[in-house]
This record gives sequence, structure tokens and C-alpha cells, in this order.
Amino acid sequence: MNELQRRLAKRRAQGLYRTRMVLDSPQAVEVRVGDDALLSFCSNDYLGLANHPRVVEAFRSAVGRYGAGAGASHLVTGHTRAHHRLEDDLAELIGSERTLLFSTGYMANLGIVSALAGRGSRIYEDRLNHASLIDAARLARAKVTRYPHIAVSRLADSIDAHGPGGLITTDAVFSMDGDLAPLPELVRIARDAGARVLIDDAHGFGVLGENGRGSLEHWGIPPADPAILMCTLGKALGTFGAFVAGTADLIETLIQEARTYTYTTALPPAVAEATRASLAILRDEPWRRTHLHALVQRFRQGASDLGLALAESRTPIQPLIMGTATRASDAAAALRAAGLLVPAIRPPTVPEGSARLRITFSAAHTFEHVDRLLEALGRLPAVDDATAP
Amino acid sequence: MNELQRRLAKRRAQGLYRTRMVLDSPQAVEVRVGDDALLSFCSNDYLGLANHPRVVEAFRSAVGRYGAGAGASHLVTGHTRAHHRLEDDLAELIGSERTLLFSTGYMANLGIVSALAGRGSRIYEDRLNHASLIDAARLARAKVTRYPHIAVSRLADSIDAHGPGGLITTDAVFSMDGDLAPLPELVRIARDAGARVLIDDAHGFGVLGENGRGSLEHWGIPPADPAILMCTLGKALGTFGAFVAGTADLIETLIQEARTYTYTTALPPAVAEATRASLAILRDEPWRRTHLHALVQRFRQGASDLGLALAESRTPIQPLIMGTATRASDAAAALRAAGLLVPAIRPPTVPEGSARLRITFSAAHTFEHVDRLLEALGRLPAVDDATAP
Ligand SMILES: Cc1ncc(COP(=O)(O)O)c(C=O)c1O
Ligand SMILES: Cc1ncc(COP(=O)(O)O)c(C=O)c1O
Repeated sequence: MNELQRRLAKRRAQGLYRTRMVLDSPQAVEVRVGDDALLSFCSNDYLGLANHPRVVEAFRSAVGRYGAGAGASHLVTGHTRAHHRLEDDLAELIGSERTLLFSTGYMANLGIVSALAGRGSRIYEDRLNHASLIDAARLARAKVTRYPHIAVSRLADSIDAHGPGGLITTDAVFSMDGDLAPLPELVRIARDAGARVLIDDAHGFGVLGENGRGSLEHWGIPPADPAILMCTLGKALGTFGAFVAGTADLIETLIQEARTYTYTTALPPAVAEATRASLAILRDEPWRRTHLHALVQRFRQGASDLGLALAESRTPIQPLIMGTATRASDAAAALRAAGLLVPAIRPPTVPEGSARLRITFSAAHTFEHVDRLLEALGRLPAVDDATAP
Repeated sequence: MNELQRRLAKRRAQGLYRTRMVLDSPQAVEVRVGDDALLSFCSNDYLGLANHPRVVEAFRSAVGRYGAGAGASHLVTGHTRAHHRLEDDLAELIGSERTLLFSTGYMANLGIVSALAGRGSRIYEDRLNHASLIDAARLARAKVTRYPHIAVSRLADSIDAHGPGGLITTDAVFSMDGDLAPLPELVRIARDAGARVLIDDAHGFGVLGENGRGSLEHWGIPPADPAILMCTLGKALGTFGAFVAGTADLIETLIQEARTYTYTTALPPAVAEATRASLAILRDEPWRRTHLHALVQRFRQGASDLGLALAESRTPIQPLIMGTATRASDAAAALRAAGLLVPAIRPPTVPEGSARLRITFSAAHTFEHVDRLLEALGRLPAVDDATAP
């Protein structure tokens, strides 16, 4: 056995081997995998926009107009009218001075953090931050202090200990738990300490706030110093990519210095146009958010009636903690046998011992879909076992 | 002035401030910027496929079938038949056991290097490697040894000094110079040392080799141990994204362990379908490569007749070194006034004192386009000055 084979064998032995499923028809809700038609609770397409006729049509027509790829980076000739308009539309929606598109949320986090937290500066991270924020701090070669999940007093203590300045980074809605970071306190701590706070709203943008502007709207926080907002476009917006919102100085600094902005091909312009259509729907179809939250409530009521141990989350991310990786995989397999697709999330994506089903809802779900899920969960033998002490 | 404003002012004072141009019609060759129609030598769309009717049509029709975004990561439910087929098509073309799609070449390099070169292991880099390879080594927290550009004997010496194993990383075609890495020697050195060599063929794939398979085909190197191949899809293929080619063990290891593969949204499936159409054209229209190389030759002949100092490159990337950033910017501005778009590439993208015009050709150019460029270059007063000793 060579080294790679040994690593793969070890992972298999630990029950942590990952396999990919090939989707033949990827909608937020009803998917086909080979001959199986399955009801899915896996997608981050929270508003069901990836297959919205207006988004699809805008995308198609922009491909006709702009072609496929941008052919260059933004600073050479990859920056088209489509990208530019999308940045303007996003700034208008968010209410920030400016925004800047990145190809992915992963690259946005890497680029922002490396540009703002130089070698040796201090970064404070919530322990459950997304992998891209963790890698961002590593890439920046900053000194990293991780604080226990959501423990703002611990954060405040360590800022006191290390002195002023630095960068706090946090998921706004934690991707595997669905709970909210206490943003008002984080912003206050940052301001008092002369620090910045990077808020990754991948899972709040489009979903939270009266107008779907996300976690900042939910908490009433302005998109300006000390807050820096990063949102992805491949989740509630149903397309692909990410953006940063903040002051004009921030955006100009990132254009000059964020390596993951400069040294990479711009997104296909047609993707930007599709996203502009998604933004218009965010505004025109508020029922999607209302319906989504109603689905979540129905699920939580039903799950509580079944005696399932729910997490703190009020967002469309509803984890059911199973404990071991095997338990989570077994539960997912049982649901799959019942025609339901729910992902088992295992270490190292989540901490050891907290493997889980990660249920996500989409505005494309119906109440009946929720009831089918509840019924199947009620029949899972393992669930109460796993939540027992 | 706040800290960001000071950084921006400093950059302005150094003549290194970057501004973006908004393209209203982004073709490889004839672009519109506001009211100006310009002839462009900026795009990495080397085969002119971004606007090829078959690519455009495949893209549009796949958007209708798959919708806009994938809605999830590959390991959850983002991996569709479109992605899967593209991986198969790419493996068949390259002749590797398997391939794996990444959202961008930047992320591919980060993911491969981090998965294969753990903390404290040794990475050997050509000094002119692309930013994403440099960041990849940093993210992996490997011990990095940089060797002078293309100096294989220096590389061999430092491998001797450090002992066996490790990872060599190199551009196959250097992105700002267009010259080729001596891959046969690098592969031999890697094999002798029990090391791996990651070959970034962003600018060779589709362009080099009889069938457009890229640098490995050009040099006759098999896509298997110790070579790992990374190619981007946003350049000669005209779309977006990237892939890695190698052994099945390598690909499985990356699926399990490459964080930039796992923790990010899969590419829109329609982009994968568009890329499959590009691959078919690679096979069906070999004249694109032939014509492209003829354009390069005509340019080199003409430039040499004009007494311009050409670089070593025989690829579609033809730099004209100008020296200072200001000189490069002035030359680009003079060309722009003549209706030609050629990017000035300045530090830190290229080493201090080697600011340049980076001319790139596309199969969508005609011989007349080349002649127009030569004529304008012949009228640039600054060119010979800059190349004088
Ligand atoms: C919290 C969070 N941040 C960042 C990302 C990365 O965004 P992207 O998928 O656009 O790379 C994700 C998910 O993929 C996420 O859940
Ligand atoms: C040599 C090289 N490697 C990697 C990349 C990054 O690829 P991508 O644009 O897909 O991020 C580029 C250019 O962008 C490049 O020139």
C-alpha cells in the first residue's frame, strides 16, 4: 500500500469515508438519483431560486449576450458591465457604500482576511467558524485566538489580554448548527477595541431580515466600520459566487491587495446577470421568506411533539445531533430508504461526537413535505437513543 | 486619514494603483468599453471558445435543464450528472485514471497542496510560480524552498540537501512570461527523490500538444505519479473552473481531504456542460491551435523586424518588458489611444523592474489584427528605450 492508500484505508476504518452521489435532476426539493425520485432536505437553495423561471431566463439570455467565460481577471479585461451592475445592485440592497464580487465565498474569506490581517496581527475566531475562515487566518499567518462558540465574554477577555486592534471573524448563521452569532455584541466589542469584525453571512443573506438583507438587517447593524460583510450567492440566491460589502476604502483596498481577487478569472458574466434576477425576486416575492419560516416552525413543532431533541436554531438549518458518525450515517440511510434525502454530517466537518443529520428547508418545500419528513423521523429507531445522555 | 486610506495613498504614489475597466462586450478580440470599440490582446480565451456558438448553445440548454446554481457542495448534493460526465470526459482526454473538478484554479492549487504537503513537509517552488501556488504552500504551512526561475540544477541541489520526499510545484507555462518549465527534468528529479510534482498547466491546456492536451502532451509525460496535473477551464476552454488529473488514489484522497473541495458550493452544472462542449471543439477544430501558433509566429517575426526585444516564449503569451511601472502604463495608454487594448502588468504581479505589456493571442485574432498591433508597437517611442541596457 502506498501512502495515499493507507490514508484512505484509515479513513474507511474510522467510518469517515465520504462518497459522492450523482444527481440527475438537481432541484432544491425533488431530486433524481439514477432511478430514484427523492425528496431532498439537503440544499442551501433556501428560497428555491436556482430553478426560478426568471433566474433561468436571465441566465440564458446573458449567455447569449456575453458568451461563456470572462476570459481574464477583473483587473485585466474580465470585469464586465454585468459584474459591475451586480456590485451596484448589491450595494443598493445592502445599503453599503460599495461591494466587490469574488468567485466563491471561500476565496472571498481568504482574500479579505489576508488583506486586512497581516502576518503577526491578531485574529479572533469562533470555534465553530466555517473552514474558509479558519483557512483564511492560516493563510494570513496571523496569530489566532479561538474562543468557545458564541462566548462573547471569553472573546472580550482575550481582547483585553492582547490589546487593541485585530480582526474578529464569525459565521453570522453557523453553517452546521443554524444558530446565530450575537452580532450586536461582537460589533460593540470590536468598536470598543478598535478592531474589525468580518461577518460571514453565507446562510443569512436572502433568508433573514424583513427584506432578506440578512443577518445585519435582522440585528439592525449598519454595513460599515467596524463590520465587514461577506455573503455567498450560491445559497439563498441560487446562483454562484460571493461578495463583500463595506466602505469604499475597504473595497478599493481589496481590489488592490486581495490576492484571491486579483489572481483569478472573473466569474462568467452570465452568472452575474442570473444573480441580478435573483435579487429582483428577493424584492418581488417576499412570500418565499415567509413561507420558509413557516416551514421551519412547522418542523420544530412537529419534531418537538415527537420528542426529538432540537437545536437552538430558528433558521432553515435544523440539525439533529446523532452522536457517532455511524449513527448519523445509519439514520441517513434509513431516511434514504424511505425516499428522503438528508445529509449525515460527520467529523471533521463537525466536532467529534456531534455527527448529525443536517436538515435544510427551502421555500420550494410544502407543508406536506415537512410532514413526510417528520413521519419518517418518527420511525427512526436510533434518534432518541442518540440524544439520550 | 485612516489606515486603509494611507495604504491606498501609498500605492498611488508608487504608480501601482490598479483600476478596473468595465467591458460592455467581452469577446476575446473585439471589445467595447463604453463608446470605444477596441482590439484586445488581453484575454486568456486562447482558442476563442468563450463565444463559440456550440459552447453558448450547450450552456444555455443546460441552464434550462439544470437551473442556475448547484445549491450544495459536491459531498452533499451538489454533484450532478453534468459534473460527473465532465470529469469522465477530461480523464479520457488527458489519459489519466481520474480527474476532479474544482471551482477555480486558485482553489484547486490550495486544496491539492494542502492535502499532499502537510505541516512541516517540504515544498520546492519556482520563483515565478503563480500566486495561487505560493499561497497554497503558505496555507499548507509547509517549509518552502524557492529556486531561481527554471534552474533545475539549483532545485536538484536543494533536494539533495533536504533529503527525499516533498512536493515540487511549478507553472507549466509561466503566466506572465509565457516560457515553459522544463517538465521532463522536473519529473525525473521528482521520481529520483521520491517527491511529487504538481504541474499547473493553466496556460498550456488546450494550447500545447498535438491534441491540445497541454504541456504533458507537448513533453510526452504521462499524467500519473510522480506528476499531478492541474488545469484551469477559464482560459483556453473559454468557461470557468479547474480540474486535477491523476491516479484514482490521488483523486479519492482529494475528495476526502482537500478542504477547498469539500467546503464550497459546486460549480453551476451548466458551466460543466458548457465545458464539455468546449472539449468537443478541442477535438473537432484543430485549426484553432494551428492558427493560434501561426499568429504567434507572425507576431514574433514582425516584432523582431521592428527590433523589439522578445521574450523566450513561443506560447500565446508574449511579454514585452518595459522596466518601470510607469513605462508599462504609458505604453498601454498609447496603445489604447490607438484603439488597442494590451494590459500593463506591474509589480507585485511581476518582479520589480520587469513591468511589461503582456500580449496574448487568441485563435479569434486574424493576421491583420497582428499587423495592426505591430504597427502600433512600432510607433511606441518608449519601447526601445525601455529595452536598452
Ligand atoms: C459559512 C460559510 N462561509 C463560506 C462558505 C463558502 O462559500 P462558497 O460555497 O461560495 O465557496 C460556505 C459554504 O460553502 C459557508 O457555509
Ligand atoms: C498559472 C495559473 N494558475 C492558476 C490560476 C488560477 O486559475 P483560476 O483563474 O481558475 O482561479 C491562474 C490564473 O488565473 C494561472 O495563471
